[in-house]
Amino acid sequence: LNELVFVGLGLHDEKGLSLHGLDEIKTADEAFIELYTSLLPGFSQERLEKLSGKRIQVLSRKEIEEENGRLVLEAAERGKTVLLVPGDPLIATTHITLRIEAEKLGVKTRIVHGASIISAAVGLSGLHSYKFGKSVTVPFPDETPSTTPYEVIRQNIELGLHTLCFLDIKAEKGRYLGIHDALKALLAIEERKKARIVTPNTLAVGIARAGSSKPVTKADYVRKLLSYDFGDPPHCMIFLGKLHFMEAEALIQFAKAPKKLRETTQ
Amino acid sequence: LNELVFVGLGLHDEKGLSLHGLDEIKTADEAFIELYTSLLPGFSQERLEKLSGKRIQVLSRKEIEEENGRLVLEAAERGKTVLLVPGDPLIATTHITLRIEAEKLGVKTRIVHGASIISAAVGLSGLHSYKFGKSVTVPFPDETPSTTPYEVIRQNIELGLHTLCFLDIKAEKGRYLGIHDALKALLAIEERKKARIVTPNTLAVGIARAGSSKPVTKADYVRKLLSYDFGDPPHCMIFLGKLHFMEAEALIQFAKAPKKLRETTQ
Repeated sequence: LNELVFVGLGLHDEKGLSLHGLDEIKTADEAFIELYTSLLPGFSQERLEKLSGKRIQVLSRKEIEEENGRLVLEAAERGKTVLLVPGDPLIATTHITLRIEAEKLGVKTRIVHGASIISAAVGLSGLHSYKFGKSVTVPFPDETPSTTPYEVIRQNIELGLHTLCFLDIKAEKGRYLGIHDALKALLAIEERKKARIVTPNTLAVGIARAGSSKPVTKADYVRKLLSYDFGDPPHCMIFLGKLHFMEAEALIQFAKAPKKLRETTQ
Repeated sequence: LNELVFVGLGLHDEKGLSLHGLDEIKTADEAFIELYTSLLPGFSQERLEKLSGKRIQVLSRKEIEEENGRLVLEAAERGKTVLLVPGDPLIATTHITLRIEAEKLGVKTRIVHGASIISAAVGLSGLHSYKFGKSVTVPFPDETPSTTPYEVIRQNIELGLHTLCFLDIKAEKGRYLGIHDALKALLAIEERKKARIVTPNTLAVGIARAGSSKPVTKADYVRKLLSYDFGDPPHCMIFLGKLHFMEAEALIQFAKAPKKLRETTQ
């Protein structure tokens, strides 16, 4: 049977894989993995090969994007092929492109889902998922400066909604944008726009290493978060819209938010 | 060690569980499960007990919500306790309440994430995740009629954003709102509001049984979706904002959308 199965690795390490995902590797003719769309800090290729009994070939961004995933597509035309990806598959645009190419070649595709930072960040914060507006990625300010994140947060705040901010990664260079640098980039935009969207007195939530056994979730004023030690990457952030009193209570209990948050709820 | 670990079961059946999640059950003193916040159609308690070697106690909505999770909290004060929940934990409000109660009692809590319909629906559709606005649940029209879903879709469309619509479930009654009935409820609101948000000629995406080996993802006009056979629950839907040409291509390849969709993209 020739097919291409996208398998989500979930968060943090190889044990984020689901039992279905492990079965798919075990029964694959060929297995590939890409590790550049997200950081899995605890991942070990050796342990995954031992668990699955399969050799797993690591693909670079170049091999997937510039060479149009040739290695994966050729394998999928020969037999059952698994592509392991961090998080939940098909959230990164590059996987969507690859899946379209496979279907155009007549190769059947399937998805085995994994945990994603999209829902994990919501769960860790205790905020209500239906109160999140559109999400946005904060790029490296020295590489691709952009006011888009600021404008997305502004639009969501005007609607009373929270904003989940992903922080850019350049895995090939070992660069992972941290909460401190992302906040500084947003404060620099605030200096110019002066719309009072991200000020030192704005409340926000920083999350580090979601899916690990010791994630950090900290809610506080931006001026305090700037000196809070979040530890190693990956990081992400949430800017807050209007808070339901249950959400304030959750932020106080799960994210050590200042208790005066209670006074600001709906 | 007394602690409460929320473990996500992911989608569809017990094999949506991550390898970390399985380890947590194996090392737990007591293990509970709730199966009323989402439907896992392929789930077998017997198979999960065999996989984990642990007896797993099923909790009803009443035991968690009316009795404030007393059984779980008492177990967590005695030793390591696992609560298994469908999807990714702490997305349902009822889990947040329980986690707050546990922390207030001085019981440490942790989360082992699982795949969620929030990211799975995005991945199955091939739409871009950062183009989704706030999500909404369509309630049973005969139990709790509401114009909120219509208004949320309207607000997102005005912003050019997609809307993920969850469909209500009443697991105790074995009731699961399907795409046909949800569309009819939205069309009835359209009859009164006449804002041309959900008409027979509106394009939408219906998704059934995400996480199973045979999920259905179908994009078409509402009038066509009304007679399309999506099969068994659970179902969800996506209403579309402005489409990027890559998104149109993905809907055509992954969701058999009408090819004229290409003419409507940005």
